[in-house]
Amino acid sequence: MPWDPYDRNCPSRRLLDRIGDRWTVLIVGILAEEGPIRFGELARRVDGISQKMLTQTLRNLERDGLVRRTLYPQVPRRVEYELTDSGTSLRGPLRALEEWAVEHMGPVSAAQAAYDEASA
Amino acid sequence: MPWDPYDRNCPSRRLLDRIGDRWTVLIVGILAEEGPIRFGELARRVDGISQKMLTQTLRNLERDGLVRRTLYPQVPRRVEYELTDSGTSLRGPLRALEEWAVEHMGPVSAAQAAYDEASA
Repeated sequence: MPWDPYDRNCPSRRLLDRIGDRWTVLIVGILAEEGPIRFGELARRVDGISQKMLTQTLRNLERDGLVRRTLYPQVPRRVEYELTDSGTSLRGPLRALEEWAVEHMGPVSAAQAAYDEASA
Repeated sequence: MPWDPYDRNCPSRRLLDRIGDRWTVLIVGILAEEGPIRFGELARRVDGISQKMLTQTLRNLERDGLVRRTLYPQVPRRVEYELTDSGTSLRGPLRALEEWAVEHMGPVSAAQAAYDEASA
């Protein structure tokens, strides 16, 4: 059976949901550039993410096989997160999305202003 | 000021949010392949989307300048949606995301099964 995100019951739709999520885009971007990183540092880099949301997003990424979580048996305990090969392969598409957003923010803002004026 | 989606107050983060949304990915995909299309036909093609969600997503896309809505003055009235040039430029990044999801669904499923077994 081919995967088809246009079919509401296909698990690829839920996967698409998770990978397009803004937190995923931002977290994968940092992991790709920084390599192994600790939870607290990651939280600082993704401005505005809650601890709960970061925990949940990392858990989903780990479950999907995109992020590897390593616990170092020391005191205080140290946990680091990094991309797996599969996660690294996702970086390209996500960077393209991020770059599109940054490059088109100007025209998008102008379109919004025109739309709002026409609707007023 | 450069746009920076890592900054919680930058409008590019909200734009990133909208374009990564699964409904946006699916709708832009259909518009790219079908050209001008009516609301009802679009609703049929995006399996499981509610009328309210389709309306809202199309309105956001129109406001961002990515979709053009054309009302034909006839009875019964006819409204068609199509991508603008800006919307067409978004198709590449979104297709890459969609293709990544379809191509990696197998390994992702396997990773999920392994994760769930280890957690059980």
